[in-house]
Amino acid sequence: MAGARGASATPLTGGLGIIRPVTGFGPEHLPYGVFRRAGESPRVGARLGDGVLDLAELAADGPLDEDPALFDQSTLNRFMAAGPTTWARVREALRSLTTGPDAEPATVALDEVELLLPIAVGDYVDFYSSLDHATNVGRLFRPDADPLVPNWRHMPIGYHGRAGTVVVSGTPIRRPSGQRREPGDEAPVFGPSVRLDIELELGFVVGVPSAVGEPVAVDSALDHVFGVVLANDWSARDLQAWEYRPLGPFLAKSFATSVAAWVTPLQAVLDRRVPAPSQEPAPLEYLREEPWALDLDLEIELNGTVIARTSARHLYWSAAQQLAHLTVNGASLRVGDLFASGTISGPEREQRGSLLELAWNGATPIELADGSTRCFLHDGDEVVLRGRGGDALALGEVRGRIEPAA
Amino acid sequence: MAGARGASATPLTGGLGIIRPVTGFGPEHLPYGVFRRAGESPRVGARLGDGVLDLAELAADGPLDEDPALFDQSTLNRFMAAGPTTWARVREALRSLTTGPDAEPATVALDEVELLLPIAVGDYVDFYSSLDHATNVGRLFRPDADPLVPNWRHMPIGYHGRAGTVVVSGTPIRRPSGQRREPGDEAPVFGPSVRLDIELELGFVVGVPSAVGEPVAVDSALDHVFGVVLANDWSARDLQAWEYRPLGPFLAKSFATSVAAWVTPLQAVLDRRVPAPSQEPAPLEYLREEPWALDLDLEIELNGTVIARTSARHLYWSAAQQLAHLTVNGASLRVGDLFASGTISGPEREQRGSLLELAWNGATPIELADGSTRCFLHDGDEVVLRGRGGDALALGEVRGRIEPAA
Repeated sequence: MAGARGASATPLTGGLGIIRPVTGFGPEHLPYGVFRRAGESPRVGARLGDGVLDLAELAADGPLDEDPALFDQSTLNRFMAAGPTTWARVREALRSLTTGPDAEPATVALDEVELLLPIAVGDYVDFYSSLDHATNVGRLFRPDADPLVPNWRHMPIGYHGRAGTVVVSGTPIRRPSGQRREPGDEAPVFGPSVRLDIELELGFVVGVPSAVGEPVAVDSALDHVFGVVLANDWSARDLQAWEYRPLGPFLAKSFATSVAAWVTPLQAVLDRRVPAPSQEPAPLEYLREEPWALDLDLEIELNGTVIARTSARHLYWSAAQQLAHLTVNGASLRVGDLFASGTISGPEREQRGSLLELAWNGATPIELADGSTRCFLHDGDEVVLRGRGGDALALGEVRGRIEPAA
Repeated sequence: MAGARGASATPLTGGLGIIRPVTGFGPEHLPYGVFRRAGESPRVGARLGDGVLDLAELAADGPLDEDPALFDQSTLNRFMAAGPTTWARVREALRSLTTGPDAEPATVALDEVELLLPIAVGDYVDFYSSLDHATNVGRLFRPDADPLVPNWRHMPIGYHGRAGTVVVSGTPIRRPSGQRREPGDEAPVFGPSVRLDIELELGFVVGVPSAVGEPVAVDSALDHVFGVVLANDWSARDLQAWEYRPLGPFLAKSFATSVAAWVTPLQAVLDRRVPAPSQEPAPLEYLREEPWALDLDLEIELNGTVIARTSARHLYWSAAQQLAHLTVNGASLRVGDLFASGTISGPEREQRGSLLELAWNGATPIELADGSTRCFLHDGDEVVLRGRGGDALALGEVRGRIEPAA
């Protein structure tokens, strides 16, 4: 079965050595982040081209008519907590400042700043919302059973991840150690993971909290979302296979999750909303909406070779359905909660969002532009996730290099 | 099999109507909490008998030689972040103030204050460390398989819970709604949980953080622990049975976890450390220690009837092993992280820490002192968890009443 699915081993050779122009960070986008100049305290900024608008300074000096304390912060949380009216006002003001023939906004050069984790993460929930990913994983991990678990088409399956190990793009990722038991072995062994993987995901940041006991309706769920980030939910497949029954993934995921330094305002991606195929069977009432997805092109680059090109259109469950499900039991939302889509895979081999799927658990290695092959990540490998919504919108990239185990 | 295990339906009639004297909160104990007097801001206090020592006031007025800002707080986190030297100094000072013939410390009466959630929870991890509980649940949920999953004796199985819905004792618990699929049904239905349950657990609060990529050794794990709380990990069994494959419990647990208002300093329970039976097979090196457990008597009261009496001695994996496992992949700890034991059950029926086990998934209902019976929780039911370590130590109780679904 693995061979049938993973027969093609043709690499997607790609971007190696090509210098990408900075596009997708114009006045239509203006994602938010937290930056620090050497010797200064962190501040909230908005990215414009290859520079950063210093929002604390713009507020202090007048062009931005807001309390500077909103932006004189080490995370976006205070700005997010100010609510959607403030978000809209700030966004409109920044667009005015950066648009038009006379616009010459002062920016700090990106290469003069350090970019920090933009949000203090409350709870981090990771979903499993790509039908192709769930099917592929089922085939690989449970070869003797129906690949799709019976609940999958009835609800967005999810679990809580570790909020304290969400890190910003660029943070080195140390290879985790843990227990694994290979097929046929009696006892587990301890050591560095030998099947370290990528998960290409789209994350959503909660900006509007909700009360305990009051579910968020699917139709108003997006009102709670501040913005969008690419995410790499690094996964140790060998640890996961041994530990995940019956309480789900734990150490296989908890060592690190990388997110972009730039949070794209939800408003900037809403014009990428496209209709999606109907869900069969129709979901229960609290999950029912006009099916939609985000038309965002996504790619994984490994050591300079693009190894996957996929799209957020391939997600079966929407962010609104995820949030409605997450709260339907009365669980509340906090400012800074992060929820991610789960690995995004499409039906074609080159559209798969993890090495597990791309190399079919080692059966069909991926070839890189330098002639080497990969089934899982080697020490020193560098992964970059990218996303685009047409020419005007580039999601903040997510970059991470694997360091050897301790 | 259910009948064989759950044959006895004899209730443990108990404390109904009996007034319990306030013992276990003397100068040997001095647990910490956060309290608020009407119209005032929250402060850190220590419980003494049926009163609260106002630590901010004691520090401001001099008897406690510490920065009052440590205690003029809405959570214990700043005090915890000050580190073990400060904890020891404060504890010693409070013991001096409260011990001896001339000790007449001023306290605020408990019934004049509101008790708040004592910690800002970072990440919440729930383990599954009772052998009897894991075996019972396996028998009930997976009747056709070996009740104990193959990994169970090799590692403390755990998962991340929802930190944002950890609530303080006394908070009403609204019955969650969600999806369930009954055996034989084709499709799931949506509605209030019909199998709402208790989980009696012992929680541990992290006071000393650790760095990313640096595992905490089992022998030094307790150095990171600030204190201990009883916890009730409310669980919707019907939601859990339908959702938990393959990523573990999610909505079945995320609506609420109740913890005590009083955090017992780790020092106050360490003299309850007792040797525990050897673990078979011997765990891997990073989990190996001289087996120990805490000799703490625990009980569950439901509407005034004590329905279970058990002990933390029944835990197979220790808190030190849990923390060593949690961090062995390089995951870091933050001040305020909470990790709990999982349901504590002993080998006897009356030692089981959940209704699922006590009433054997409905096969052998529990009889209460008022003549009514329970398989799971009814609306209006009040649950109280209690714990003792001899006469000198009473853990803060965990109380919660079930409110009808929204």
